[in-house]
Amino acid sequence: MPKSYNEICKAARYRLTGHGDRRIGALMESFENADPAMETDIYGTGSIINDFEKDIACFLGKENAVFFPSGTMAQQIALRIWCDAKGLKNVAYHPLCHLEIHEKDGMKMLHHLEPALLGTKDRLFNMDDLKSVNKPIACLLIELPQREIGGQLPSWEELISISDFCRNEGIKLHLDGARLFEVLPYYNKSAADVCSLFDSVYISFYKGLGGIAGAMLAGSAEFTENAKVWKRRHGGDLISLYPYIINAEHCMNKRIGNMKKYWRHALAAAERLNKLKGVKTVPEMPVCNMFHAYFAATKENLESIFADIIEKYDLAIVTNFKEIDGSTCKSELSFGDSFELIPQEILDKAFDRLESEFIKLMKK
Amino acid sequence: MPKSYNEICKAARYRLTGHGDRRIGALMESFENADPAMETDIYGTGSIINDFEKDIACFLGKENAVFFPSGTMAQQIALRIWCDAKGLKNVAYHPLCHLEIHEKDGMKMLHHLEPALLGTKDRLFNMDDLKSVNKPIACLLIELPQREIGGQLPSWEELISISDFCRNEGIKLHLDGARLFEVLPYYNKSAADVCSLFDSVYISFYKGLGGIAGAMLAGSAEFTENAKVWKRRHGGDLISLYPYIINAEHCMNKRIGNMKKYWRHALAAAERLNKLKGVKTVPEMPVCNMFHAYFAATKENLESIFADIIEKYDLAIVTNFKEIDGSTCKSELSFGDSFELIPQEILDKAFDRLESEFIKLMKK
Repeated sequence: MPKSYNEICKAARYRLTGHGDRRIGALMESFENADPAMETDIYGTGSIINDFEKDIACFLGKENAVFFPSGTMAQQIALRIWCDAKGLKNVAYHPLCHLEIHEKDGMKMLHHLEPALLGTKDRLFNMDDLKSVNKPIACLLIELPQREIGGQLPSWEELISISDFCRNEGIKLHLDGARLFEVLPYYNKSAADVCSLFDSVYISFYKGLGGIAGAMLAGSAEFTENAKVWKRRHGGDLISLYPYIINAEHCMNKRIGNMKKYWRHALAAAERLNKLKGVKTVPEMPVCNMFHAYFAATKENLESIFADIIEKYDLAIVTNFKEIDGSTCKSELSFGDSFELIPQEILDKAFDRLESEFIKLMKK
Repeated sequence: MPKSYNEICKAARYRLTGHGDRRIGALMESFENADPAMETDIYGTGSIINDFEKDIACFLGKENAVFFPSGTMAQQIALRIWCDAKGLKNVAYHPLCHLEIHEKDGMKMLHHLEPALLGTKDRLFNMDDLKSVNKPIACLLIELPQREIGGQLPSWEELISISDFCRNEGIKLHLDGARLFEVLPYYNKSAADVCSLFDSVYISFYKGLGGIAGAMLAGSAEFTENAKVWKRRHGGDLISLYPYIINAEHCMNKRIGNMKKYWRHALAAAERLNKLKGVKTVPEMPVCNMFHAYFAATKENLESIFADIIEKYDLAIVTNFKEIDGSTCKSELSFGDSFELIPQEILDKAFDRLESEFIKLMKK
């Protein structure tokens, strides 16, 4: 049986994107220097969890933080808390918010909250979209960067305007900061600077930081105490979460200083891709370590071209094409540890070849 | 500062109960023979999770199973599925069911289900209690053993009657099998024998099996497919759950054959405790590896007596006293790997001394 494109990509020595395959060695590595006699966390207590929560809270400039097994759980809970506090059922977010498209409607089915969708799917929402919401909302969720449109960001000034607006209107502002660390170089701000605009903040440990799983939800002490009760209700108050916590700390130390570099790699890759005929990236100039690429070609043709590159240069450039219509494909590219392992010569040759291949393809 | 009773117990070389302290070495041990290059599970897919789910489903005699981060999540979801299927909001369970007393009302707050409480808090419920429920219920939950009353069990015949009744009445029967493996020696049945009486089954990996965390929910393929959707909604569909899965498999292999032994240790310990004046166990003859002990004394007096035993024999017998009223305390004792490490002579001497201490205490 011939190998699938996915298998071909996996076998490649070099990758343009990511931190490398997800393998269980990642856990083993993060426990290499751990003391086996260390006591575990027990139902949210113990220094192993509470110290990490305090460290992250401090880093985000918030009073306290709660470690969660997942961001899905953390964010539903944040919105529920803000809604309950206001006695409202409505929140507002982007039409491609994680809660809207990736969680099987958990927020609606479990918490009976309803979203007001701001703006349209293909762009960031703005102050005008926010002002046009025609029902009272308890909370606004902003995702930085907005992943599903290529990781775009509002300007710092726009963010401040939105934050001011929310404070004046009594609307709580929640940050979906799954990729918060990745955008700090662009804003040239500290995490605490960004978080100071928000009442509650969720961050993830397995995006740019490359951890196994896990999330943190931060805010006032009152908010996090409340979040702990909801964590228990959701079934997220596991007797021990230390496998994720020790790994999260390890990955935080390992990669938190790399975000500028990952962004630089994204910029370099986007520049190369935009030179190819029939290819464009969104945004054209990435503002963090990710972007989306659009290809005016069929999945079949694209897989054939990129498999050929792998065969010749052992380099997987785009590993996953999603068909949008009969003649366009899209892919999400996120940059991590893999990029700098590629020898410059291979990168140059591979893109030279891609340039001529795409010229041929577009002539057809 | 003098040590707390808890600290004194922790420092003891020998323990009557448990598998030993919860330390992070438990995770490290379960990865000792793991292949670091093994691919992880990704959002519920991959052989690392699916093979284990199939193995456990087979072991429980069910069509399929889903690995969950927690039993709290798994059981709420099971009841929700059965309620949705019947278009009802009511379930029935024991007044001291885990969902009723340990989950901050998650079932009510997230799923809007209401329980009918069967019988009274101090005993198992029976067929009469079940027949006297005066509203339609979608599902009955049975916990085997009933932990909060010392781990008691209905007779096998009673279980069959309840199961038959439910089938005839169209009531789904769910097993809270957090300690299912622990009761199989008493029933002298296989896990599949017991589970055949139930429509859905939850088991835990961190009670008798001594794992870090994690649970499995088993039933028909239709049921488990539905459970996966709810797992996503709850925020339990973590990108990777392998740290718990590899540990669960390891602990399953390590301890599944020990349940009869743990039960024997519980029987031996209960016999010794029941000989002490002012002490009785519930049940008098344990039916699995756990029981509750009641002490007609104050917490202060009890901690003093048992701390003295630790000082003399380095043996912690009861590590946690809960005051019931001014003159009675209670403790839960669960038996695991620790018991057989105690030299017979120490056990004998410690209980001899306890006997005279309790005679003195009861005379006061």
